[in-house]
Formats: sequence, structure tokens, C-alpha cells
Amino acid sequence: MAQTGFGSDNFSGVHKEIMDALAEANHGHEAAYGYDQHTESAIKVFKKHFTEDIDVFFVFNGTAANVLCLKAATDNYHAVICADTAHINVDECGAPERFTGCKLLVAASKDGKIGIEDIKVHMHGFGFEHHAQPKVISITQPTELGAVYRLEEIRAIVEYAHEHGLFVHMDGARLSQAAVFLNTGLGEITAGTGIDMLSFGGTKNGMMYGEAVVFFNRDLARNFKYIRKQAMQLGSKMRFVAAQFNALLSGNLWHRSAAHAHKMARILAEGVNSIESVRVTCPVESNAVFAVLPAHCIPILQEEFFFYVWNETDSEVRWVTSFDTGKRDIEDFIEKIKKVTQSR
Amino acid sequence: MAQTGFGSDNFSGVHKEIMDALAEANHGHEAAYGYDQHTESAIKVFKKHFTEDIDVFFVFNGTAANVLCLKAATDNYHAVICADTAHINVDECGAPERFTGCKLLVAASKDGKIGIEDIKVHMHGFGFEHHAQPKVISITQPTELGAVYRLEEIRAIVEYAHEHGLFVHMDGARLSQAAVFLNTGLGEITAGTGIDMLSFGGTKNGMMYGEAVVFFNRDLARNFKYIRKQAMQLGSKMRFVAAQFNALLSGNLWHRSAAHAHKMARILAEGVNSIESVRVTCPVESNAVFAVLPAHCIPILQEEFFFYVWNETDSEVRWVTSFDTGKRDIEDFIEKIKKVTQSR
Amino acid sequence: MAQTGFGSDNFSGVHKEIMDALAEANHGHEAAYGYDQHTESAIKVFKKHFTEDIDVFFVFNGTAANVLCLKAATDNYHAVICADTAHINVDECGAPERFTGCKLLVAASKDGKIGIEDIKVHMHGFGFEHHAQPKVISITQPTELGAVYRLEEIRAIVEYAHEHGLFVHMDGARLSQAAVFLNTGLGEITAGTGIDMLSFGGTKNGMMYGEAVVFFNRDLARNFKYIRKQAMQLGSKMRFVAAQFNALLSGNLWHRSAAHAHKMARILAEGVNSIESVRVTCPVESNAVFAVLPAHCIPILQEEFFFYVWNETDSEVRWVTSFDTGKRDIEDFIEKIKKVTQSR
Amino acid sequence: MAQTGFGSDNFSGVHKEIMDALAEANHGHEAAYGYDQHTESAIKVFKKHFTEDIDVFFVFNGTAANVLCLKAATDNYHAVICADTAHINVDECGAPERFTGCKLLVAASKDGKIGIEDIKVHMHGFGFEHHAQPKVISITQPTELGAVYRLEEIRAIVEYAHEHGLFVHMDGARLSQAAVFLNTGLGEITAGTGIDMLSFGGTKNGMMYGEAVVFFNRDLARNFKYIRKQAMQLGSKMRFVAAQFNALLSGNLWHRSAAHAHKMARILAEGVNSIESVRVTCPVESNAVFAVLPAHCIPILQEEFFFYVWNETDSEVRWVTSFDTGKRDIEDFIEKIKKVTQSR
Repeated sequence: MAQTGFGSDNFSGVHKEIMDALAEANHGHEAAYGYDQHTESAIKVFKKHFTEDIDVFFVFNGTAANVLCLKAATDNYHAVICADTAHINVDECGAPERFTGCKLLVAASKDGKIGIEDIKVHMHGFGFEHHAQPKVISITQPTELGAVYRLEEIRAIVEYAHEHGLFVHMDGARLSQAAVFLNTGLGEITAGTGIDMLSFGGTKNGMMYGEAVVFFNRDLARNFKYIRKQAMQLGSKMRFVAAQFNALLSGNLWHRSAAHAHKMARILAEGVNSIESVRVTCPVESNAVFAVLPAHCIPILQEEFFFYVWNETDSEVRWVTSFDTGKRDIEDFIEKIKKVTQSR
Repeated sequence: MAQTGFGSDNFSGVHKEIMDALAEANHGHEAAYGYDQHTESAIKVFKKHFTEDIDVFFVFNGTAANVLCLKAATDNYHAVICADTAHINVDECGAPERFTGCKLLVAASKDGKIGIEDIKVHMHGFGFEHHAQPKVISITQPTELGAVYRLEEIRAIVEYAHEHGLFVHMDGARLSQAAVFLNTGLGEITAGTGIDMLSFGGTKNGMMYGEAVVFFNRDLARNFKYIRKQAMQLGSKMRFVAAQFNALLSGNLWHRSAAHAHKMARILAEGVNSIESVRVTCPVESNAVFAVLPAHCIPILQEEFFFYVWNETDSEVRWVTSFDTGKRDIEDFIEKIKKVTQSR
Repeated sequence: MAQTGFGSDNFSGVHKEIMDALAEANHGHEAAYGYDQHTESAIKVFKKHFTEDIDVFFVFNGTAANVLCLKAATDNYHAVICADTAHINVDECGAPERFTGCKLLVAASKDGKIGIEDIKVHMHGFGFEHHAQPKVISITQPTELGAVYRLEEIRAIVEYAHEHGLFVHMDGARLSQAAVFLNTGLGEITAGTGIDMLSFGGTKNGMMYGEAVVFFNRDLARNFKYIRKQAMQLGSKMRFVAAQFNALLSGNLWHRSAAHAHKMARILAEGVNSIESVRVTCPVESNAVFAVLPAHCIPILQEEFFFYVWNETDSEVRWVTSFDTGKRDIEDFIEKIKKVTQSR
Repeated sequence: MAQTGFGSDNFSGVHKEIMDALAEANHGHEAAYGYDQHTESAIKVFKKHFTEDIDVFFVFNGTAANVLCLKAATDNYHAVICADTAHINVDECGAPERFTGCKLLVAASKDGKIGIEDIKVHMHGFGFEHHAQPKVISITQPTELGAVYRLEEIRAIVEYAHEHGLFVHMDGARLSQAAVFLNTGLGEITAGTGIDMLSFGGTKNGMMYGEAVVFFNRDLARNFKYIRKQAMQLGSKMRFVAAQFNALLSGNLWHRSAAHAHKMARILAEGVNSIESVRVTCPVESNAVFAVLPAHCIPILQEEFFFYVWNETDSEVRWVTSFDTGKRDIEDFIEKIKKVTQSR
């Protein structure tokens, strides 16, 4: 496979500063299972960014971060309202249903975003035992289609949810992108909007592995250590996850990496927008560009640059940039697209 | 906490050669989720060690390796026979029951080992729908108490299991230790004994994270990729798990590291055996020493060297050595024990 | 509450002939858990109606019949395609997801019926481990909206399903209604169409309790006795379920009762159709009438006749008839509706 | 099979007074799912017997009553301590583990009874996330071996449990037997001892089907209606379960039936005790007699009288009496045993 491409931000490797942090953490013995000093300091760094009043737990991957958040907030007979495009709905092989017992109630979305009206469709049957009881609204920030919820949009959802006794979960596998786009800190778009819990992604922003579950509603965290263990997500040498988060968050690496990836996506979008037969289909608010292009061009481009077809029927493709995407890669790619689309 | 100690082999860090392999793997883009070249070559190396006729899958940790093996071989109404001391029985917070739906049938053990007679106690109720149906025998090699099953013991269990339509799972979180002690290769004690599936541990032998599920009975592997994904155990940047296994298994690192840890345990056991008030309680066949010593000595020793009390009532302790345990650490520790036990 | 009404066919009591059969079965001792002579003969009667080549199991209620059918045909990582209106989707409090681990993939429906095009929307992602794998298509016959699939419609779905490696489940909580409407036997619309498994309802056709799970694809029945037991659905004094099915199916009681209820629904529909402000909204092909009427009339009618509002927004109501609905009840009800709708 | 025998109390039919109550309840329409007048009055009768301050729910069978009690009181990572002989441990095909996710911690028992010392063996690992957290102690009253806990024994367990933050569940599938033996009311041995929840059995005391879940700790009942529905245990024509309980509990039928069965067991035990080669092995405190007799006699006796071998190795058998066991049946049986045992 090509050494570069636009397949996904998890096709990239590990940021050098994070590799250095791993090496740094590799001295002597440390207690396992999170009772080590790196975990302790990583939690402190999270508190600095998000807010003091949180509980933080590390898990191995994004699937787990999402599913375990939902598990912490639900009983088996509850339901989770999410966008039809939500990763938890389409890309987890049924893990949320399997591990929580809950039904997912799928709301129509625009660019992956849902609003109160979409949510309302599922807000009925409360107290009626034949009906799975809605308990969580889950939103993805930025969405799987690269769009970013504005602060007031999140606050409206949170307010509506809390009024009706529901919790709000944010799937932040690429949260840093949203902070870059909105020009805010990580706390402002999370704690600041009143959400109850967050999956915070590291892997798609230059880490090797590891994601964080952050509870703003700390009641939900009370028994989380047991949930994590029983869910097979308690790592033994946890200092190595913690060290990576320390590297990501202690300075501004999280922001630098995300901003770079975003910039590359913008350049790519602008570059292809000027090509007649290519149309960008979603707002470019993070590190992904969705575009429609002539079907016959796709396999030709894929020979050199790996990327996924998002929607076979419409010949819509997804191009994802990363912390390590070079400007030159983008330029070469745009050039190639131009050539291929004009060749007929 | 002390920079060295005998808490567990997952208190140690990562072997330098494995760190190097991680750095080596960190170039350019690679397909995620195991469709990369490192995973491909790691699987080849597994086949060289174990036997060509296997399927190999990487997961994040030992809990998952064990639970997912059991899941692959059972329906919800089955039962798993294991030792009372088995990690799956006492240290997984009920994860096996939770994720497989199966009942664990607990057999009495000697040094963590079970034999046909212990197993037979649970071999009834077949075809009787009120009874969870025994389907898997799970053994730990070496056991949680540091003892190693001899090849003929395993073969006897396998033969008995297969005669009765049961599968055999081996929890090999420290399998390399058994190979060192029995002076065999990894294949001889696994494929060579006829077991159906194996959890092969990397983390306790110098890796950062990552364990392998190995199916010798390949029918059981058929749908495993879905099981792994739904169980939240599919890593995206899988090349980094694969690279570690490549480093561990391509040369003889797995053996060197295990042999060293074993040697340190032997020295420790011999050293303390000569101390009057200390008694080694289990055979030292891997990298752990279990010993009884005067209760008042334990906290004094723990001030300087971290280790766990195994059995409060008997003041039995567990000392685990690791690839990075120094001979000097052992000597200092023995010296200290002598001093402390004689000080009254 | 009113002694009569149109709330549901499970508001009615037990048919006299079934009560007699219960009394008849109440002599002496019989082996429990289905190893009795009544169960034996009930299974024979099922075979006479449906086809010899089946397996039959009794469970307590319709929720269980549906969920256990799905469980028998799926692994946890599978998905079930069903209509948005399907009982398993909207009225089981998430029991299908909870007990099977499967995702429900919801297809748009017309009068509760789905066709190949609706199903196709979900027929993708096969072999892709991130995607719950479609394995069962579940249809309700007649639908929750009272419509009946024609034989060729079912055969088309079955053919499509089998071509793609999926099974077909039929929720036949009111199957007798469909047989009456299509003027067929019970076997013709089930075995005759090639479906793999059936939930056959007794309670809504005059039984006290008890439903049957019928496997036409007998491979799926192989371990069903364990599934039923573990699902808490194995009744001890099973002769009393069997005796009811014997009464229902040995003669033509099933047909008489269903035909009567259907006739009552037709009379009701015809009666209200002539009322200007009332509109019947779904085909009346079973024992339910769906109608829209002026919102203010609903509570007035409900004072005397119990029934449910189906859709608050549209003031659509559901009226269900039963084996014991009197012609006089229908006439009184029509009269009342006339009076109430014209009173403003 | 023989028209009479000692197989189990669920081999018997339905008490005439209960059949009459079913016929009585079979008039007109009633709201389904427990919103009917029979259910309302049955709950009142429960309150009269047990105590006003309870919540009562009806389910279909004893498996469900037990499993749903446990579910209501636990999270997935909890553990339930019970006797090795407990029905939930040996006779539910793993339903408790499957539906609750909890581990069962098995305590050694005497005649099926456990005491504080047996329980204590499992009272460790609290707060330690690797360990399933003990949360419920489940006792069977009378036990599966026919012994009855004395009030002070139950109170001691309850006191110990509550001190340690655990709940107490009583499996009362044959609770009426205990009340007869202890000469108390139903409330005295349940509410009066401080237990948190009860499975109260009807089927083994002359009902057709139906068991009750009774919460003395009403916090545990808060979401039970959803648990019951999702567990497929919500019956539609619930009035017919309620009517049976009304018949059982409104007068003294529950006591009459239980007392009769107990008396028959006493006569049987006394009768066989005088036979030299027969030895009664458990206290006869309910409606079961456990006895050891010469192995060769068992099949001869079984030709005429059905009963189960309890323990093949020891040729121990179980004889269960019922509300409809005749004194003559007992006498015939004793005579037969005498003849058979002396015939060699």
C-alpha cells in the first residue's frame, strides 16, 4: 500500500513527540492498572484542559470509549438517541447494543448533526414498559461527515436532554479538530456546554493507542472502574497510555497536530473545488473532505493514493488528512485529480 | 513506589528491542485494523513457531484474549471448566460470564493444576436442558501459582476433552515460561498437545501491550473477526502490536527474556529456602516464588520492595521476577529478608 | 373498565372450548417440562397443520416466541432486518437487542409490510467486521397495521433472503387471521412459502397463555431447548399449554375464532366508513380497524368503549376485535360513533 | 407414565379451587398486562399476608422469579453468593449468569443451608476492580434438600448481609412449606426477617403457572416493570395469574395444600425409616424425602412409581409429595419398597 494517502487518520503513525514520551516512560517498575505516576499526572493535565471537576479513565480504543460511556449512563432497558450516521450506529458491529442491552434510536441528520426536532421524534413512550426508555443523546463532535456543532447547538441539546432526564454523550474521537475549528479550548466545548460524558480520542491525533473516557457528571463515574475491567478494557502497563496523553496535552501538541491536519484538508478542499467535475459535499470543518467525482476516476486515483469510497451509488469519496500529511502530498494529489478528471 | 520490586511482571517496562521495533514501525501510512504488512509478517512468525495450520488475531490485553477464546468456542448455555485458582475465575471481574453468558464450573486444583479427576466432577448433565452444558476446559500454563503442566498432563486433558466433545483452551499469559522450563518450543506445548486455542501473552514478557489469540482448531476462528470487533478489541493502528510480536518472536527474545526471569526466580527461591523462618510453598517452575514468612516481616520488606500478599491468613506472599530483574536486586532482597526475619 | 371494548385481542378472556380442555388435562400426574402426553399430541397436531418436517417448542408469550426465534438463528454480531412498525422494533422494550446482542435494521414499510427494495437498503457491509452482519429478515403476518402479505410477496422475500444467506422469521402472533383472509391453511402460508421459523400465537386467538416457536429449518432448532431454558421460558406444567393448543388446532376452533373476529372488523370498518368524519386508514385484512376521527370524539368514545389511540398527532385510533366480540357490540359502537361525530 | 408418583410437585395438576378461580375470572374483557382488577386484588392479598409495604410483580415461572430478583438488585459486575445446591446454581442452565452478567459464588452447604461462615469465604475483594463484587446473598427456603432455615438463622444472614452492604434474596418456590413447618405466617418468615426480596412460588403448590416477585426493599422495585418486560416475562392476560394467587391466598388454600403435602412426606419418611436397608438422609421439613436404598431396588420401584435419582453414586433418591398425594399412594409405596428391598 502507498506510503501516504487519505484513507484515515488512523493510517498515520505516531507523532515523534509521543514516541519520545513512550521512551521516557520506559524506566524502572511502575504499579500496573493505572496506579502509577504517569496516570496521575495525565489526569491532572486533563483537569487543566477540561475542568477540575471530572473523572478520567483510559481505555484502549474508540469503540470502547463510546460503548463504556453509554454503559455507565444506562440500564439495559434504556435507549440511546443518535444520528443515523453516528459511528456507534454504523461502525461498531453492534457493540453498543451488545454491551449495554440498549436500543439505538436513529435520528435523521444533516452532515451528521442532529437537532432538537430530530431528537423529538424518539421522545415518547416514557413510563410505558413496552418501550425502551430514552436515556442518552449521543452526538459526534466533529461529526463523521466532518461538520462541527456550534457551542449553542450543543447547549440547546444539553438543555433539552436535561429537562427530560436524559444524559448527553459526546463522541470526541476527533474532538481536537472541533476545538481548532471553533477556536476554543477543549474545556469550552465540553464542560462548558454541560455535556455529561465524553469519549476523547488520542489515536486519530497522533497517538499509538489509547482513548479517554471523561465524566463531567461524576455520578456516572462511580462504578466505572468495574465496568471498565469487566469490559476487558483495563490495561496493565497503563503508564504508556498516560505518557502519550501527557505528551499530547501537556504542551500544545494536540492543537498543533489538529490544526495542521485541518489546514491540509482546507487546502485540499479548495484545490479540488476549482476542478469542474469535482464537488465537495460536506462542510470542511475538520480533517476530512467529502467529494463527488466521476466514478471512473476513483480507481485510477486509488492506485497511487489510498482512500475510501463513502457512497458507492453517488461516487462520493472521503479524504482524511492527518498530523503528518505533507503540503506536497496535497498538491500532488490535487494535480493528479485534475489530470485524471480531465483525461476523458 | 520503588523503582524495582516483585509486584508483577506487568510492573516492568518494555524491553529495549521492542521499543526499537516500535520506532522502526513508525514510518509512513499503513492500513488500519490489521491489514498492514507488520501484521502480515507477525502472523508468519507465529506460524513458524506454533505450526502453519493456525489462525492468529491480536487483541489488547489478557482478559480479552481469554474471554474471546471462550466466546469463540461456546454458546451462551455452555459451561467452562477451570481451576478454582484460574485467572478467568478470580481476576476478571466476571468478564467471562458477562461476555459469554457461560457458567464457570470450578475444579479443585493443586498448585493451580487440574487433572481428569477434578474435571470429571463437572462432567454430567449432558443433554439435560436444566444444566449448563460443559463445552470448554480451560487450563493456565504455567498456572497462576507458577507450576507447569507436563506435556503428558496436557495431552491427557486434551484427549479426555475431545472424547467428550469439549474444547481445550490454554491461558498462556506466561507461556514462554513454560517453554523455558520444559525446554521445548512454543509449538510443542501447544499445537503439539492438541489444544484447540491459546491466549498467548506478550505484555508479561516485555511488551508494552498486546496479546494474541491463536486457534489451532481453525473452525473456531471462522467468525472471530466479528467477535473481536464487537468485543471492542479491534485496534486501529495494529501494526504497533504486530511489530512488538515480531520483535519478540523473530529472534529468540521471547526465550531470552523468559529464561532470565525464570533464572532470577530460581535464585530467589534458593536464597530464601535457606532462611529458617521462610518456606517456599509452590514449585518454582516459572517466574514466581510463593513463600510463607513471619507476618510481621511483610510490611517491613514492602517498604523497600513492592510485592503482593497472596494469602493474608497464612501470610503467604508472591514474588514475581521479570526480564529486567537484576541479579543484584535479588541478592539485595534475600539479604534484606534474612535481616528482617532474624531481627526478632 | 368496560366489560367490552376494542383495546386488544388480549383483553378478551379464554374461549370456552379451551377452558374445557384445561379442565380435561387436569387429571393425575404428568411429567413436567414438556415430557407429557399432551405436549406429544399437540406437536402431532402442529405437524398436521404445518408440515411433518418441523420442530415445535412452547413458550409463555409472544415476546419470547419472537426473541427466541431470532436468538436461534443468529450470533451476537448479526443484524435483523425488520419493518419500522414491527412489534420487535417498537413494543418489546429492547428485548431482541438485549437477548440476542443483534442490531435491528429498520426498513421503511407500507401498512407494516416491507418489500425487497426496503430490505436492500440494509444489505451491505457483508464480510466487513465493523458492520453488524444481516442474518435474518423478520416480517409480521398479518402486520401490526392489519395488512396481510400475499403468498407471492412472502415467497419473494424468502427467495431473496436465501439467495443472500439470510433466514426469514415470521411473527405470527395473529397468523390465523392471515390464513382466514387468504383462505389458506396454516401450512400453506408458512412451510409453503419457505420461511425458516415462525412465532405462532395462541393468546390473541382465545388462549389463556402460551405461544409456539415453529422451526421449518430444523437446523435452527438443534439447541433450542437450552436456549429456551436459559431464556427462562421453559414451563413446568407444560401440559396446560399443550392442551390449549390441542383445543385450538385439533378441530377448527382456530379458524372459527379468527374468522369471527375478522368478520366483526369488516362490519365495523364498513359501518364507520359511511360516517363522513371518519376515515379508515389501513386495509382491513385481519381483526383490526385503524381509523382517523375528530380528536374531540376520542375521549368521549373511550368513556364507554376502551381502545387505544395509535397516533396522537393524527388522531388515528386502533380498534381490535376478538373471538368474543358480539355483533351487537359493533352495532352499538358504530351507533355511538355516529352520534358523537355528528354532535358538534 | 404412572398417574401418580413422587417425581416432583410440578408433576401434579392444578387444585380444583384454582381451576374454579380461573373459570370465574373468565368473563368479559379486562385490560392486559396487569392493569386489571384481579391483579389489583391479588396484590392486596399479598400485602395482607406479607406486609403492606411491598411491591409485587407476577412472572411466568420460578426461573424468572429468581433471575429477575437478582437482576433488580445487581449491576453486571456484581456477584451473588449462594449454596452449592441452590437451584440458581445447578438447575437454571446458567440463566442467572446470562441475564445478570453476575458471577455466582458458591458456598458449601449442609442440607442446602448456608451460614455466615460459609458466606464469609467469599466476602473479600471489595473495591478491587479485578474481583466481581458480592452484592446479594441468595438462600432457598425450604432448601432444595427439604430443610428449613429457622427464623434466627435467616435474621443472622440478613444482619450480616446488610452490615456489609449486601441484599438478601429468598428463593421461596416452596415457601408455604416453610411456613407450615415453622408454624408461622408468610410474612413472619419474609418481611419479619428483613430479607430484601422474595421469589414466591405458586406452581409447586397447586397453581397452573405463575410465580410472584415480592420486594420488601422497595427501592429495588423501582424499575422492575422494565426489567420484567425486557426479560420476556410480562404476560398479557395477567388476570389469570392473579386469579390463581387470589384463590391460593384469599382463604387458607396455600396452607391446607402445603400442610397436606408435608404430612404425606412425614408419613412416607416414617414408613421407610423402619425398613432396614433404607436410610433417610435429610431432615424432612417440607414435602420431600431424600433416602438411600439398595441400588438394584430403584429401577424396580420406578416401574410403578415415578421419582428421580438424586445422586447416582450413593443411590440416593428424592421423593416429592404434593397437594394431591393420597395417603393410600404413600402406603402402597411403602409396602412396595418393603417388598422390593427384602426380595433379595
